[in-house]
Amino acid sequence: MADLSSYLNSRTKRVDQALRSYLPGPKTRPATIHEAMRYSIFAGGKRMRPVLCLAAVEACGGDEALALPAAAAVECIHTYSLIHDDLPCMDDDDLRRGRPTSHKVYGEGVAVLAGDALLTIAFEILARFTPTKRYSVASAISELAVASGSRHLIGGQVLDLEGEGSEVKLTPSALRYIHESKTAALLTASLRLGGMSANATPTLLEALTIYGRSLGLAFQIIDDILDVTQTSEKLGKSAGKDAASHKSTYPALFGLEKSRREAARLTEAAHEALTPFGKKGERLSALADYLLDRDY
Amino acid sequence: MADLSSYLNSRTKRVDQALRSYLPGPKTRPATIHEAMRYSIFAGGKRMRPVLCLAAVEACGGDEALALPAAAAVECIHTYSLIHDDLPCMDDDDLRRGRPTSHKVYGEGVAVLAGDALLTIAFEILARFTPTKRYSVASAISELAVASGSRHLIGGQVLDLEGEGSEVKLTPSALRYIHESKTAALLTASLRLGGMSANATPTLLEALTIYGRSLGLAFQIIDDILDVTQTSEKLGKSAGKDAASHKSTYPALFGLEKSRREAARLTEAAHEALTPFGKKGERLSALADYLLDRDY
Repeated sequence: MADLSSYLNSRTKRVDQALRSYLPGPKTRPATIHEAMRYSIFAGGKRMRPVLCLAAVEACGGDEALALPAAAAVECIHTYSLIHDDLPCMDDDDLRRGRPTSHKVYGEGVAVLAGDALLTIAFEILARFTPTKRYSVASAISELAVASGSRHLIGGQVLDLEGEGSEVKLTPSALRYIHESKTAALLTASLRLGGMSANATPTLLEALTIYGRSLGLAFQIIDDILDVTQTSEKLGKSAGKDAASHKSTYPALFGLEKSRREAARLTEAAHEALTPFGKKGERLSALADYLLDRDY
Repeated sequence: MADLSSYLNSRTKRVDQALRSYLPGPKTRPATIHEAMRYSIFAGGKRMRPVLCLAAVEACGGDEALALPAAAAVECIHTYSLIHDDLPCMDDDDLRRGRPTSHKVYGEGVAVLAGDALLTIAFEILARFTPTKRYSVASAISELAVASGSRHLIGGQVLDLEGEGSEVKLTPSALRYIHESKTAALLTASLRLGGMSANATPTLLEALTIYGRSLGLAFQIIDDILDVTQTSEKLGKSAGKDAASHKSTYPALFGLEKSRREAARLTEAAHEALTPFGKKGERLSALADYLLDRDY
């Protein structure tokens, strides 16, 4: 598929348009919170999760328009989690996507509330999910809430926080749990919500799950590798932070070489998971290449 | 109704039981977050919102058991908002219901995440809403998300935060907006979700809305009055904080006497709103007396 970059372009635009229409305007009272929500959500993110959601719809032969609420909702969750992760009491980051973080611009109080508001509106938006024969609105809401809740997305952040600054290295299985929770869970839910919008069969939904988990883990390992090997300028965020805070990462635990091999193995697993889709899985396959074929 | 205290007792127990069953056990991995969620949710709160939710079901002739997800969900939202409001970057409170606040016990990072987790699980729980002829799961999710989102609950907190420490007094209409947003919106949603569980007619749902708004505003004004007139010990939280932080309140804006008259007027309006329920509204009427007949 030579047209991946035009695909990414058009889908990103579509998602941005949906987000603009779902979020209250920047002048809606109180203006501060609505400005802060937009500041972070329109900060030039790659829209990886919404694009995967829409690509899953395509792979399952559904209508992308029906999945726009799901695509927008996962991006709201992702953005809220970044705002809260960047807070001084968490990762304490001043820079995100090359711009000052929310609390640097609006203060900590408003940053906490902007995160809360994006988390809340994710469910307001997802309530627009169009039910299919197999999947109800309740199942979609539950899918997103579980993936972003205390047993997954938030749970991973808690373990991450507890590990930081600690002299005790995490076990490999604990580190895998963090990666699965922090990155893979929401990626997988994005794909599954796309599948659910397209009334995917249980077999296809399971294939999306395996693809998502492999992709998410590979992506996180590559991120950890790049944190070691790249400069802040190239990353658009502070580099070397993991090592500085004694955070357990794949490279810290296994070294760069073994981490690279594990990333490659998981990339392979992601591609294999797409077999049941046949030709229809080509876009997801191209996206895996695009996301994982970074200079690591 | 002489049996109000036994009613409150039994309904509070029922809600606590539901919350216990919906929340992950305290040993669920990662244990810290699940302990922190339970620490705040089982802190001896009055369960005002869930009880109002169940009383609305009764007033509309529905089955209370079907409303337990809604009752539990509103309590999760309320508790999350208290955890975040108490943070150092917000109201900076050390004491809540006579016990140390979440961030005092678990640290700021985990307190932010415990709030996030309770906010998220509220929607997971509400996804169990049993649809009725008039009200879908989507309408219930949307009801809760809007009331607790950036235009209401969170919006009120933003304005509150912006007003704090400021020398400029709020206008009466701005103060009313804060009260409506911070207190009345979630109270009203609790009642409406109860009504929706019971398939309430539009007329009854509207009556619950007016009752909720009046009750919520009266309650908030009385809270502000008590902050001026009572001791910390009696309140179970730090008293005199509003004045100390130059927060605009009804008493600060209008004086105690006028504030008391406004609280009484709103109490009257709450009772009047119950007319369409006839005898079935007696419990809601007794609850208004119970909540508003404090020593103010």
